[in-house]
Amino acid sequence: MLNLLLVDTELEIVPKIMADDYAIRINAKKRKKPASKLLLDSNFMHAAIERYFPSESNRRGRPDIVYHFLEVAMESILNKKGEMRVWIHTRNNLIVELNPQVRLPKSYNRFVGLMEDLFDKGQIIGPDGFLLRLHDGDFKTLLELSGHSKPVILSPKGTRTNIRKVFDVSGKDTSVIIGGFSEGDFRSPVYDLGHGYSIFDEELTIWAVGMELICQYERDFNIV
Amino acid sequence: MLNLLLVDTELEIVPKIMADDYAIRINAKKRKKPASKLLLDSNFMHAAIERYFPSESNRRGRPDIVYHFLEVAMESILNKKGEMRVWIHTRNNLIVELNPQVRLPKSYNRFVGLMEDLFDKGQIIGPDGFLLRLHDGDFKTLLELSGHSKPVILSPKGTRTNIRKVFDVSGKDTSVIIGGFSEGDFRSPVYDLGHGYSIFDEELTIWAVGMELICQYERDFNIV
Repeated sequence: MLNLLLVDTELEIVPKIMADDYAIRINAKKRKKPASKLLLDSNFMHAAIERYFPSESNRRGRPDIVYHFLEVAMESILNKKGEMRVWIHTRNNLIVELNPQVRLPKSYNRFVGLMEDLFDKGQIIGPDGFLLRLHDGDFKTLLELSGHSKPVILSPKGTRTNIRKVFDVSGKDTSVIIGGFSEGDFRSPVYDLGHGYSIFDEELTIWAVGMELICQYERDFNIV
Repeated sequence: MLNLLLVDTELEIVPKIMADDYAIRINAKKRKKPASKLLLDSNFMHAAIERYFPSESNRRGRPDIVYHFLEVAMESILNKKGEMRVWIHTRNNLIVELNPQVRLPKSYNRFVGLMEDLFDKGQIIGPDGFLLRLHDGDFKTLLELSGHSKPVILSPKGTRTNIRKVFDVSGKDTSVIIGGFSEGDFRSPVYDLGHGYSIFDEELTIWAVGMELICQYERDFNIV
């Protein structure tokens, strides 16, 4: 089993401090939801994010990159063969657990709505049990939930390594940490566990990293 | 060089026959564009598509799956290394050529706007030349443009083959055809060229196929 741990994703509800901002109120009206139930989304709220969090405005509010990552991961052969679990750790130390059989919406707007429902209710239930479930917990809880205290760490700052060697010393049952942000570095104490590996000389999107890992794992452990 | 040919994608402008439909007019008003410049999108126009094209309503108007495919392909290591070209053949025999260095919008709404601009103007130009360019041409033109008359064909109806063997008989300089639709089969005479390969026992999304192909090619030809 491959556990993909997306750490420090910029997935959060609009912070209270922003709720009265004019742009946020317009957004809430358009979406017919109170600001306290909206996902922070830099695609639509960038100016407001800049006003309230100028030093972090280049990274906060990025459900879009989590969405691309999940479309890649959940539709992969590895997941369809039942050999993968995905865990999403968020800025405010909430952890999203996904049922591997969940069918995510193909439309971004509906994905955002689904995540808002999840943050509101704590879980999304389907006919056969949970589809998405929210846990309280930081980076350490994430390791416990996924069952591995020594994950493989990927980081642009890690030791440059060929992707084909990333699973050389891990067994088939393993976890991999990927940074869930578009800019900057981990906020969680990931490096306490080691330097990690870098798999390319330039920065990659989180879903490009995800696809390489999944395909490498599939080949190393004869899933395809 | 790997040429990815996405054939029979459901990318088209709202057909004239639908332009006066109430739902389309509402959509056009909301988007502040005439209906004749809107992309047909099943996410927002499904009922209208069902009224006008009942026998094809399960496949028409799917820019979303092309978008996911392109996010996977264009952000891949293979593309960043300059070893890949993507060509998108559409329902009405238009072919989109992408500059491998184009940076696609991370937001779906902006991607749709970009495609609408492309269909309207015929090309999107950046500071260093074209980013996206539209050609008239059917499936045969596509083969000529990409420079290969004997592409590898992937199809759920093809001969079940291990993905690791797909490039066994092709050279490094090759083309692969992927169906750009979510349901049904090729409309273009792809099977005139052969049966093709199937790489999995269940249906896969077009971007799951794309990611497997790209990663396999990267490994077969030592790109990673």
